[in-house]
Amino acid sequence: MEKYNVAVVGATGAVGREMVSILEERDFPFANLRLLATERSAGTVMTCKGEEYVVEVTTPDSFEDIDIALFSAGSGASKKLAPEAVKRGAVVVDNSSAYRMDDEVPLVVPEVNPEDIFEHTGIIANPNCSTIQMVAALKPIYDQVGIKRLVISTYQAVSGTGKDAMDELEQQSKAVLNGEEANPEIYPHQIAFNVLPHIDIFFDDGYTKEEMKMVNETQKIMNDNNIKVTATAARVPIFNGHAESINIETNDRVTVKEAKELLANTPGVRVEDDPDKLKYPLQNQVTEIDDVLVGRIREDHSIDNGLNLWVVANNLRKGAALNTIQIAEKMIEEK
Amino acid sequence: MEKYNVAVVGATGAVGREMVSILEERDFPFANLRLLATERSAGTVMTCKGEEYVVEVTTPDSFEDIDIALFSAGSGASKKLAPEAVKRGAVVVDNSSAYRMDDEVPLVVPEVNPEDIFEHTGIIANPNCSTIQMVAALKPIYDQVGIKRLVISTYQAVSGTGKDAMDELEQQSKAVLNGEEANPEIYPHQIAFNVLPHIDIFFDDGYTKEEMKMVNETQKIMNDNNIKVTATAARVPIFNGHAESINIETNDRVTVKEAKELLANTPGVRVEDDPDKLKYPLQNQVTEIDDVLVGRIREDHSIDNGLNLWVVANNLRKGAALNTIQIAEKMIEEK
Repeated sequence: MEKYNVAVVGATGAVGREMVSILEERDFPFANLRLLATERSAGTVMTCKGEEYVVEVTTPDSFEDIDIALFSAGSGASKKLAPEAVKRGAVVVDNSSAYRMDDEVPLVVPEVNPEDIFEHTGIIANPNCSTIQMVAALKPIYDQVGIKRLVISTYQAVSGTGKDAMDELEQQSKAVLNGEEANPEIYPHQIAFNVLPHIDIFFDDGYTKEEMKMVNETQKIMNDNNIKVTATAARVPIFNGHAESINIETNDRVTVKEAKELLANTPGVRVEDDPDKLKYPLQNQVTEIDDVLVGRIREDHSIDNGLNLWVVANNLRKGAALNTIQIAEKMIEEK
Repeated sequence: MEKYNVAVVGATGAVGREMVSILEERDFPFANLRLLATERSAGTVMTCKGEEYVVEVTTPDSFEDIDIALFSAGSGASKKLAPEAVKRGAVVVDNSSAYRMDDEVPLVVPEVNPEDIFEHTGIIANPNCSTIQMVAALKPIYDQVGIKRLVISTYQAVSGTGKDAMDELEQQSKAVLNGEEANPEIYPHQIAFNVLPHIDIFFDDGYTKEEMKMVNETQKIMNDNNIKVTATAARVPIFNGHAESINIETNDRVTVKEAKELLANTPGVRVEDDPDKLKYPLQNQVTEIDDVLVGRIREDHSIDNGLNLWVVANNLRKGAALNTIQIAEKMIEEK
């Protein structure tokens, strides 16, 4: 079996750490592993498959001899360093938003559009967390009955912002429970025991960048610009795990029974839907779960052909680190 | 000015306590006030307008000489005792779901359908919390451009379940922050740092009773069975204040500017919408606020005529106690 030299850029961040542990869990065939970060985190020692690795500062030369570079260090770092990695012969799988809407760059969820991987010219983009779990659940429905329009509202965890935001939720929650003031630093308003209808920056038409990612990335991944999408993205006071309330207008009717069967037969998706047993997807379930959980599957009686779904996934894993590594796996599997 | 003998049934509950304080705040013209509850709470001393009141056990005879009986003691108590109050000449304003869909019983939000109050035959019903704040925000839009269809996802606080649920959220949050197990008692699953896509009981088609309340009550209050509604109701780990992500398909186009003006001129509604200043409705804002807050007003680009809104209100006040008392005020004002 062929082995590859792999670099992880942003190895000490919330997603980077998941990447390193997923490389181990899935026994990714790496020959050498290089863990990279900024100066602040250089020197950190991390372990993978029983070996210790010292985190190094990322420079263009860090990518010499690297075959696959997994980036999760923000758009700025990707824009600056991904071309350097490509120049040195690496294929970059990038978890930032820097290249997602670039026509030259495939945007991939391996269960949905694996074929796009091979169209790359050096960089493959990993979609936004909330898009990944949604399209994974939608694909079997799209293939069976077509999708006209989606109305989505999200319930997103603070881990999507990073480790600092998780600390802020913890600190603010303790403060509020002690009757003290919460001091917002990472978020513009109190997040403890509160919901913020605001993720990423605002555009002039009132939508946030997070909401528009769900519109544009969905059309690109599904390779169908006729799918109409409108989204409202909200941050809830939860450490990890994103939930989405998805309303789907389909071209043809699909019953609840048919939808359940379609979803149950989809790799990477698990149906959690048994109201009699009070079973539905929960965000506190997904700490150790890679699958996208789908439940609350209901026919929408307000239109001729429609469904409502509740979709939950671990945003650090399937929403980020896992999907990135699955892209790399698919790429080398077909080589 | 005429004065009325008023009874509050369920006076010691989360909503009942708000009722008593709102009677004082709004200087409701009562001659006598009788505070009623179950045996468990009888003897509790409560204060209103500087007077002390001892809570009594509710019996049919409690309603002798009562003009207005405000009920918030659950459906069972309303079914048993509201007819006894009516028999003794009282008008009942009932906050439970017992009579809401009864053809003889008006279901009223005073800003939306005040005229229905006078159709009562002894009982007037107060709508469900999540419906009240939604129709209050929708009415000016409905009047201007008509409404075809609504897709709603809710973010509801635990205070809607009652005081015990607020205690459970507090205890579980402390436990989780201490690295201990959360022990669900009121809710079937952990509510701390989790979202439950489940409010009230499940029906056979997979919808919850809470979701169907939003469908049926909206049509009744708006007096328009052609409004199509589909809803997903979720409980978020917040003490008080409900939020709703509302997608509206209108008959005619309404711009963001027009929608803001319509809403800004609606009594009981306050527009909180200035993304540049990171201003949007927040649940932790509404502790002392009676208005329904509306923000994140956006045109829905996925259909010809549509809007997205984020609507927040204090579910114990406008969603329950305040609306009940506003119904009583409107009723006596027009006498």
